[in-house]
Amino acid sequence: MKAEIDRRRLIALLAGSVLTHTTLASALGPARRMPRVDALRLQGTLERLSTFGRPAGGSFADGVSRVAYSDADVAGRAYAMALMREAGLDPGIDAAGNITGRRAGSGRSLPPIVMGSHIDSVPSGGNFDGQLGSMAALEVVQTLNDHRITTRHPLEVTLWSNEEGGPVGSGATVAAVPAEALDRKFGGISMREGLRKIGGDPDRIADARRAPRSLHCYLELHVEQGNTLETHAVKIGVVDGIVSIDEYDVEIRGFANHAGTTAMAERRDALLAAAQLVEAVRDVTTRTPGRQVGTVGRFEVFPNAPNVIPGLVKLSIEFRDLSDATVARLGAEVAERARQISARTGTEISIVRSWRDDAALATPAIQRQIEASAAALGLNSMHLPSGAGHDAQNLAKLGPMGMIFVPSVGGISHSPRELSRWSDCADGADVLLQTVLRVDRIELGAGA
Amino acid sequence: MKAEIDRRRLIALLAGSVLTHTTLASALGPARRMPRVDALRLQGTLERLSTFGRPAGGSFADGVSRVAYSDADVAGRAYAMALMREAGLDPGIDAAGNITGRRAGSGRSLPPIVMGSHIDSVPSGGNFDGQLGSMAALEVVQTLNDHRITTRHPLEVTLWSNEEGGPVGSGATVAAVPAEALDRKFGGISMREGLRKIGGDPDRIADARRAPRSLHCYLELHVEQGNTLETHAVKIGVVDGIVSIDEYDVEIRGFANHAGTTAMAERRDALLAAAQLVEAVRDVTTRTPGRQVGTVGRFEVFPNAPNVIPGLVKLSIEFRDLSDATVARLGAEVAERARQISARTGTEISIVRSWRDDAALATPAIQRQIEASAAALGLNSMHLPSGAGHDAQNLAKLGPMGMIFVPSVGGISHSPRELSRWSDCADGADVLLQTVLRVDRIELGAGA
Repeated sequence: MKAEIDRRRLIALLAGSVLTHTTLASALGPARRMPRVDALRLQGTLERLSTFGRPAGGSFADGVSRVAYSDADVAGRAYAMALMREAGLDPGIDAAGNITGRRAGSGRSLPPIVMGSHIDSVPSGGNFDGQLGSMAALEVVQTLNDHRITTRHPLEVTLWSNEEGGPVGSGATVAAVPAEALDRKFGGISMREGLRKIGGDPDRIADARRAPRSLHCYLELHVEQGNTLETHAVKIGVVDGIVSIDEYDVEIRGFANHAGTTAMAERRDALLAAAQLVEAVRDVTTRTPGRQVGTVGRFEVFPNAPNVIPGLVKLSIEFRDLSDATVARLGAEVAERARQISARTGTEISIVRSWRDDAALATPAIQRQIEASAAALGLNSMHLPSGAGHDAQNLAKLGPMGMIFVPSVGGISHSPRELSRWSDCADGADVLLQTVLRVDRIELGAGA
Repeated sequence: MKAEIDRRRLIALLAGSVLTHTTLASALGPARRMPRVDALRLQGTLERLSTFGRPAGGSFADGVSRVAYSDADVAGRAYAMALMREAGLDPGIDAAGNITGRRAGSGRSLPPIVMGSHIDSVPSGGNFDGQLGSMAALEVVQTLNDHRITTRHPLEVTLWSNEEGGPVGSGATVAAVPAEALDRKFGGISMREGLRKIGGDPDRIADARRAPRSLHCYLELHVEQGNTLETHAVKIGVVDGIVSIDEYDVEIRGFANHAGTTAMAERRDALLAAAQLVEAVRDVTTRTPGRQVGTVGRFEVFPNAPNVIPGLVKLSIEFRDLSDATVARLGAEVAERARQISARTGTEISIVRSWRDDAALATPAIQRQIEASAAALGLNSMHLPSGAGHDAQNLAKLGPMGMIFVPSVGGISHSPRELSRWSDCADGADVLLQTVLRVDRIELGAGA
């Protein structure tokens, strides 16, 4: 049986992936002593999942639009629940629409090890973000089933609902959801309607809350979505934590006037001020070394006609770093620059913070188990922060947390061109499996 | 009769306007020797015209939306035609939707003096742009009627259709209209449908062409739409000409990627490049002295989400100056800056010229008559270019052309806040009347 699995895995590696020394080693070497995931089975579930929300007439390479609460989301969730039932996990849906299946452990009254991720996508997204971690968690359970291994702690697999919109579903497990949040629209329907559509219950959303310390730990495998691992030719990323995010809504008010009749010296051009602010964001972010990032992504000009001097620009600024203090400092520096730009251009600039995600640090003891698992599998690893938000940032509020990254080809994400090699996906799932087995044997108290 | 007119005019000045020494002089002084327009009647027609397209529940101060081919445009045109009939001008509509009424002259087979402007507006526009020149031309005819004055040349008053969209109606009198131009949409309906709606005939649009040299001259009174006259405390602008306009469509292509996971050094941020281009437009425009203007008015960012690095920006650049050479030089300088920005930011920048209006110079002999008319009325005057396009730029292709400007309060235009003082409107109409009487007596050959 094991020889058969290894042979199928080797064929998969040869067929679908670049064959590297690490993947070869993992297929032929330590595998004789360790249970290994079925790489082909994992690839199969990801490929099948990719068909729910695939553009009409498209292929795997055309990515997916499986926005939360859409028909594609409903169909993908039904498929995932069928997989759970196949794996012996009897899945249920909580009031926030999160799907959880449970596998019993041998230890009486121990809290569960929770693995999870999400299967909703951004519009025109890729086939790996969230989906790899979700299918890999199920693959870990199937592999344990194949090898008749029972862990001490119960295992739970949770597919969090509407990660791309928040993360929303995992957020509901750690904090109260304000009534007005239920009116927010996602892909045209409100969260309230959406929850009903996917089997949740907006009227009882408070029931989705989980008590702190109610789990042994939370583990999530994810594609990096950046190119740090690829650049360093490293297979496994050990996530230090998820960055802090401050997002600001900015409004710049000048005066709209006729582009032909208003002398340059008389203008109060909101777009000119906004252009200077875009450059200021870049400048304050890059003038000190570090991994911090600063982005102006939303940018709207009014009245937006070729022959009218812009009177109003609305834009977003966001800063991210693992250090909350760095993120706060960048915001203060840009606010000072904005005051100078305002004075220079005769415009009014208002900056209001619209969002704050505090940094969520991964538990050091779990980071060590991920490193050890990678090493045992012959995979090199490195530490890095997650610049993207993840459900894990919410789960970190309930107990110990760890995240595993695998390389994203070209660092591309939230795009149909998002890609991770099948061999890297299987390596990541194997690290997840080994990490589950390792943390199952240790205590993970506060400050672990 | 004349004493009665002067008394009414004085009351109007006292009631509705700031009383200045110039308006007082024009009401009491030289008026005994010159025919003068009826300021109250002119104000009345402008106020009545403002009700067609006025926002529901609004007042004169709320401006007007009388976009070409709209129901408001149809209603405004009907009102203007009724005024023409009252003034003894039997109005007709040509294939391009232009309304023309004619008053016979005493000279046999002399070409007409044409006065005109437009009554269509931009969405949420003001009550003076085009409308003053239109109602003033009718007021000049009424004043000549009141005084039983017959000019040597016939007089024509033309209200050009859809000035704000082109100028479209006056354009059809000087050049062939391509078939595809008839499909262009204005306020939701095509020019073809629009022309039928206002009494034109898209199938016979070529009939709107006029032969060169078929008119004695074209005269247009207009609000300045800038603040040069106001800044210099001058009552009458003698327009040197209408500026040349080059407009460019620009596309900047970077690479859209996740704002959290893409290191600053790895980014190809289309918005950063666009911001630098906005500053370059400002810089090349202002580094040499002169009245040239450069504007980025349309600016769109894709995909336009706070957490995605912009991959594409589309924007417009336009340059205006009375010198075609200056406008061309500014375009070349910005193209060179764009090459530098492209190299620096890792983006591709394409710049395509989408529009060119050559400068239209006003006829010097008419400029001199406008100056002399203002002086005779006790009004100070100055020369200035028109930074905005006008129907006069098309008519300049058919024969001698002159334009008269009156001050715009605050230089505001294309806005409900567009405003010119009633006394300044009347002064402008008086200058138009005197200029008509003066040019009626002189030859205006080529190079006049």
